Amino acid sequence: MNNQRIVLASRPAAEPEAGNFRLESVALPTLQDGQVLVRHHFLSLDPYMRGRMNDGKNYAQPQPLDAVMIGGTVGEIVESRHPGFAAGDKVVGMGGWQQFSIVDGAAPGAIRKVDTTHVALSAYLGAVGMPGVTAWFGLTQIIGAKAGETVVVSAASGAVGSAVGQLAKARGCRVVGIAGGPDKCAYTVDELGFDACLDYKALSDNQALSQALKDAAPGGVDGYFENVGGRILDVVMAQMADFGRIAFCGMISGYNGEPIPMANPALILRSRLKLQGFIVSEHMALWPQALQELGAMVASGKLKYRESVADGLAAAPEAFLGLLKGRNFGKQIVKIA
Amino acid sequence: MNNQRIVLASRPAAEPEAGNFRLESVALPTLQDGQVLVRHHFLSLDPYMRGRMNDGKNYAQPQPLDAVMIGGTVGEIVESRHPGFAAGDKVVGMGGWQQFSIVDGAAPGAIRKVDTTHVALSAYLGAVGMPGVTAWFGLTQIIGAKAGETVVVSAASGAVGSAVGQLAKARGCRVVGIAGGPDKCAYTVDELGFDACLDYKALSDNQALSQALKDAAPGGVDGYFENVGGRILDVVMAQMADFGRIAFCGMISGYNGEPIPMANPALILRSRLKLQGFIVSEHMALWPQALQELGAMVASGKLKYRESVADGLAAAPEAFLGLLKGRNFGKQIVKIA
Repeated sequence: MNNQRIVLASRPAAEPEAGNFRLESVALPTLQDGQVLVRHHFLSLDPYMRGRMNDGKNYAQPQPLDAVMIGGTVGEIVESRHPGFAAGDKVVGMGGWQQFSIVDGAAPGAIRKVDTTHVALSAYLGAVGMPGVTAWFGLTQIIGAKAGETVVVSAASGAVGSAVGQLAKARGCRVVGIAGGPDKCAYTVDELGFDACLDYKALSDNQALSQALKDAAPGGVDGYFENVGGRILDVVMAQMADFGRIAFCGMISGYNGEPIPMANPALILRSRLKLQGFIVSEHMALWPQALQELGAMVASGKLKYRESVADGLAAAPEAFLGLLKGRNFGKQIVKIA
Repeated sequence: MNNQRIVLASRPAAEPEAGNFRLESVALPTLQDGQVLVRHHFLSLDPYMRGRMNDGKNYAQPQPLDAVMIGGTVGEIVESRHPGFAAGDKVVGMGGWQQFSIVDGAAPGAIRKVDTTHVALSAYLGAVGMPGVTAWFGLTQIIGAKAGETVVVSAASGAVGSAVGQLAKARGCRVVGIAGGPDKCAYTVDELGFDACLDYKALSDNQALSQALKDAAPGGVDGYFENVGGRILDVVMAQMADFGRIAFCGMISGYNGEPIPMANPALILRSRLKLQGFIVSEHMALWPQALQELGAMVASGKLKYRESVADGLAAAPEAFLGLLKGRNFGKQIVKIA
């Protein structure tokens, strides 16, 4: 049986392009004792993958050249030679940009069975997966959002941002989103229940964005979940309330290598802010607690999510490049089977 | 009896100058029941006073025009109409830039009796006063320095910096100071026991400073006590170890109003840093614990300090301007009586 897969063909000089990827087909090896064969139904595309494409110091290991691109997957076991798994089991794992993966059933955390009775399989890549846990961790462990506080989140309609806002609403916070375009903004307010949303594309100068934020958060910003960096960080920082907390989750605008300065770090002292970066995979001990809350909220309809679905493995590179430009609307996934 | 005092005559446009201050002499009012009269022996000069000279948003209340400049003082009670104090008692308080102050003996925390048996009176303005507690708070409550970790402190020979380094050494840390000039650097290593000190004036380009820091902290910087901001912050941030902590205590190079950007805030995410600003006067509950450790260390000679003493109240403005330019060497105080 053949396995279609996408490997990293070359590292991007600046902006990545489709030519950095290569689609190839290889024969699947025979399953060994203890292994399981997983057919991927969906692949997750996430901004962190951009960082892995670079060589050099990054918070993550670089993706090796000519190896399958790393990525989260959900799928179904088609053959098992491990007693803990059976054909038909639905599992989530890090299968990569390919149709199939062969996994050691005994490797801790390599794959995990999931229940699709009340939660759709693809949601385990989003609201009840890494993006959801990322939102939960930043909001509860770094921002420590309390009822009555104002929480701002950038990339608000995305997989992480939409979960941040809904988790904050569930905790009694006032929630202000920042997103690009009227559709994304309307979605966070009308569908997700955010109190307000600022369209940073329409509010293209910092003064206008700043005034809109003042209006939306008149008592200042107690917690900011940072998915973007750059000018939005500068504008929000200036509106932070005393003792505000900023969780640094993404700096997408700097991924191409240009460092983007922070305009006024003296605000950290002046407003006694706490700024903290985190990577959710370094806090595995808290995942079960997070996944339990996220799964229950999705099952009961309190945590809504939206997906952008690209069709077929070959569409993954273009979908990924679009994600980096903010063209997706909701969690970007690729339907593989 | 007359009281010489220095008031804020005008707010500085950019750099403050002597003309922003005015020395005047006023009659002391008669002591009322419950009040005490304190003759100041020493006045403390501190960078935070620069912020108070401005109008506009700051972390502190602006200093009113034509009012006595705020400032910490130590002195002796010359007359008491409060049963808790007697003439001859040595006290520390916020008496301001003047020879005498009249204090309500019942006001909580307005003045506090101190013991000068093993600790010199002036030390209650420095190592066993606000600067010492500032060092203690940032190191223990924000950096959370642990044995074996590397701690870097800027303005290392100053009142706060020298205490940070010695408290960190007492906790088993490797300590690297950053100071301006060979004398200050030699002092921190030879007298205070720092492991290394970098002279940022000699290492005037960022690459040289960065290389020197790499050599002095080969495993990266776990904790950074930030007294300065600007280029030194940028250089140290790039050398922070994963999960490093930065306590923001001072941003002296930005006090004249020009915001100084942070070159690469993406490091907060990449190295999973925590950056936190604080003002020690907002954490009074911890002062007794801090003062106990600081007092015991000074009394036993384990916490050394150095003072720059200006002579006479009239010398305070020039001494303060010198402090802002780093001309002092150790805690800047003014001998008033």
